[in-house]
Amino acid sequence: MSADKSAPAKLKARQPRGFVDRGPADVAASERMLAVIRESFSLYGFDPVETPFVEYTDALGKFLPDQDRPNEGVFSFQDDDEQWLSLRYDLTAPLARYVAENYDALPKPYRSYRAGYVFRNEKPGPGRFRQFMQFDADIVGSGTVAGDAEICMLAADTMEKLGIKRGDYVVKVNNRKVLDGVMEAIGLGGDANAGRRLTVLRAIDKLDKFGPEGVRLLLGEGRKDESGDFTKGAGLDAKAIDLVLSYVSAQPSIGTGVSGSSDKATVARSFNNEITIDQLKAAFGDNQLCAEGLEELREIAKLAAAAGYEAGRILIDPSIVRGLEYYTGPVYEVELTFPVTNEDGQVVRFGSVAGGGRYDGLVGRFRPEPVPATGFSIGVSRLYSALKAVKSPIVDQKNELPLVVVTTMDRDAQFMPEYQKFVSELRQAQDEHDKPLCRADLYLGSSGFNAQMKYADRRGAVCAIIQGSSEREAGTVVIKDLILGAELAAAGRDVKDSAEHKERQAQAQFSVPVAELVEGVRRVLARYS
Amino acid sequence: MSADKSAPAKLKARQPRGFVDRGPADVAASERMLAVIRESFSLYGFDPVETPFVEYTDALGKFLPDQDRPNEGVFSFQDDDEQWLSLRYDLTAPLARYVAENYDALPKPYRSYRAGYVFRNEKPGPGRFRQFMQFDADIVGSGTVAGDAEICMLAADTMEKLGIKRGDYVVKVNNRKVLDGVMEAIGLGGDANAGRRLTVLRAIDKLDKFGPEGVRLLLGEGRKDESGDFTKGAGLDAKAIDLVLSYVSAQPSIGTGVSGSSDKATVARSFNNEITIDQLKAAFGDNQLCAEGLEELREIAKLAAAAGYEAGRILIDPSIVRGLEYYTGPVYEVELTFPVTNEDGQVVRFGSVAGGGRYDGLVGRFRPEPVPATGFSIGVSRLYSALKAVKSPIVDQKNELPLVVVTTMDRDAQFMPEYQKFVSELRQAQDEHDKPLCRADLYLGSSGFNAQMKYADRRGAVCAIIQGSSEREAGTVVIKDLILGAELAAAGRDVKDSAEHKERQAQAQFSVPVAELVEGVRRVLARYS
Repeated sequence: MSADKSAPAKLKARQPRGFVDRGPADVAASERMLAVIRESFSLYGFDPVETPFVEYTDALGKFLPDQDRPNEGVFSFQDDDEQWLSLRYDLTAPLARYVAENYDALPKPYRSYRAGYVFRNEKPGPGRFRQFMQFDADIVGSGTVAGDAEICMLAADTMEKLGIKRGDYVVKVNNRKVLDGVMEAIGLGGDANAGRRLTVLRAIDKLDKFGPEGVRLLLGEGRKDESGDFTKGAGLDAKAIDLVLSYVSAQPSIGTGVSGSSDKATVARSFNNEITIDQLKAAFGDNQLCAEGLEELREIAKLAAAAGYEAGRILIDPSIVRGLEYYTGPVYEVELTFPVTNEDGQVVRFGSVAGGGRYDGLVGRFRPEPVPATGFSIGVSRLYSALKAVKSPIVDQKNELPLVVVTTMDRDAQFMPEYQKFVSELRQAQDEHDKPLCRADLYLGSSGFNAQMKYADRRGAVCAIIQGSSEREAGTVVIKDLILGAELAAAGRDVKDSAEHKERQAQAQFSVPVAELVEGVRRVLARYS
Repeated sequence: MSADKSAPAKLKARQPRGFVDRGPADVAASERMLAVIRESFSLYGFDPVETPFVEYTDALGKFLPDQDRPNEGVFSFQDDDEQWLSLRYDLTAPLARYVAENYDALPKPYRSYRAGYVFRNEKPGPGRFRQFMQFDADIVGSGTVAGDAEICMLAADTMEKLGIKRGDYVVKVNNRKVLDGVMEAIGLGGDANAGRRLTVLRAIDKLDKFGPEGVRLLLGEGRKDESGDFTKGAGLDAKAIDLVLSYVSAQPSIGTGVSGSSDKATVARSFNNEITIDQLKAAFGDNQLCAEGLEELREIAKLAAAAGYEAGRILIDPSIVRGLEYYTGPVYEVELTFPVTNEDGQVVRFGSVAGGGRYDGLVGRFRPEPVPATGFSIGVSRLYSALKAVKSPIVDQKNELPLVVVTTMDRDAQFMPEYQKFVSELRQAQDEHDKPLCRADLYLGSSGFNAQMKYADRRGAVCAIIQGSSEREAGTVVIKDLILGAELAAAGRDVKDSAEHKERQAQAQFSVPVAELVEGVRRVLARYS
């Protein structure tokens, strides 16, 4: 009945493209990171909620409008009643469905957070995965930009709690209304100009990457990159280009230009959100939409300042665009500003790890009444890389219990119960705070002594327990301190003859009566705690 | 640009069938439960590992052999290169793929644990979900039944750590080899009898539900249930039926018969694994496979006994079958024996919450060498229900920080920054252990005072902060103790005139200078800590 017998040719074990496995260090460090985010979100009064991985495709907004099938970017399958289901693409659309479905039962405004994997049916590439984790917080049912301000402050607090120092992150804030107003001001309002508007927004979005001169080219004829590839521009006239450039330059953005080349002193002096807003108001205030959006930004800046978040942490930045179509008001992006070396060997700022904005239309798709909402999403894997880059104690610490390996020198059925007793005793042993003393592993392979020592080493064990026939007869066990043992083994020949070395050898491997196993282990562990 | 404008008719917000959302209490309690399981598994030297939700369908063993498509029981979709992918069906097949793919890099034996959702494309029903969580632990690369013993002890420890009392659970152990030997002994060996063998095994599996007399019918002609439905039997002759019944009755299983009707004294007296094994050996020891399987069970029983696990916790039970085809040796099931009332109003034992066994063929499908393995899987939702049923402190406790709601009486942009300051101060406040003092929520809706009080109540807030124009002018805030307030409001008219009541009213709602906001809140929270 074993699967072995009926198996034909051997299968090849392989992961699907764009999906990854994660080993013990990553899993444990991620857990700690997620716990910190949870606590941070919880302090702001957000409650956890969990929705399933699968939703109706139409609820995700991923149904192709003119065809009877889902967008190719999502993993989809048909249910037995022929309805299309999809794996969730983000955590915002499922939240909208959840809130709409449970509207009357929820407190409003409804503050919630959720973490989970989302799926993209896209071509995988370096750093581009088809399954990745997001951690979101949203306030649904509140139209005031005070909600957007709360999200920005929450983002800042969360970065600091995770070990990202003040000055190493900035929450950049803009407003879709301002951007839309600027588009109107350069004559690109209305549905007919949607395509060109998108080209202009994409150009603005590249300020960070190409600097003002690069954006100028993209707004005009177009831009040729180093490899000679040409990107066609938006074809604006000189006056419109100047207007857009004056717009994006109103705040000397942190990290404008390639490789963080901006003048630090200038930047520091000009981190003043009020000045930015006044400047933009003077230039674009005649446009109704711009004026409204700027007042909202002013309110956000004031709320942040009142709560002690200076402009270097929550920064009004006109160049922030954000990709998603559904944003309707303030948009924000959390950028990490410390330098890292990218895959081409260039030093660049780490970049964006989270983003969000106001999406007043999304829940309303399901409801008769308008339901304003705002929220943001942390890219958990990106953030995890960032925490590793800054050696945050959250991911860097080893907070695991030490491991003890009980070796099995005589695996005859009559001797195994004794080894089993050792390992059980160790698992039940407690430290002075009534917490478990150690993890304990019983070697269950079929190899000899040397291989068992290698196993203990590979598993990162602090000590090994050994009982061969002579110890068994004497009623003792040998406790081997693997850390000290490795140290002594590495010592030079001259040292090895010294009396001190011999004394240390006696510490590195000693024997105790069986009844004192736990005490002996405790002695070794105390050396490293 | 808002999604609103282009939206046609309103969408209906609905969950796909067989999938569920989970609210804050469930999410928080599950987190605590998972943390306990993780710690328990970790003490046994198991390391976490995480595999993706999606695997190649053939790696899951869910490809229909004669047809070019996946089994209908799994959610499947084709990749852009036409290869079939599926959502994982359990956590064992992905582990086998992972170990095979990373074989040389892993310490062997390889102890690992993993938790995660699995998916079944089945007809949903009451208590039957299409997405549910499992928590597994496995030892791969060890052929000794000492590994099976470790898993059984781990299962027992984990139940106790979760708050299931000794006596309220039992880990039942059997061996596929023994079952196969019994099948040979009644003349049902060989491939030709696979179908009838399955019918007999299913009958044995029903001992728990229908008692020995029910099993007798299922082994013979068949059994008619209360509703009149007839289940065709295995058609064994009287001698074979007696043999099978003598086999399953060797251990008076905990909970044999319907509704836990077995005589407790008898059961307690006979919890002796050695006697069960001797009895089975006397009856079936002539069969080579049986004899081998029984010796393995004896070894497991001895290891468990040596480590202090008496037969009432780890019980050799010949009636345990386990469904999955791939088991090749010992199989085990964790049963909770305390009574609960089922949906038909009957008192029944809670039943199985975890199970597993040895699957020596599964990893070998991918590898040239044989790779023995054993492990078990906890049904997390079932276990969660059980913990709620026994009111385990793990899921019952409220270990959340108290919530404070800052109300917003004047939402003019000029007053909001002050409220924002209050809420920020509260979020930064710490208790005497340097831990956060409370969670704090800023009311961001558009309703008046009464609705804001209802909001605070609905969110379970302990106190509310209020500042209207008169307080603002006086530089104070009002702190309202919502718990005491509710108590006083419920008092009778006679009480309300008393001096004591008036004093308590002064405690329930008092005003402090703005600078003493945190201290005032601290005073209220101290009443309930």
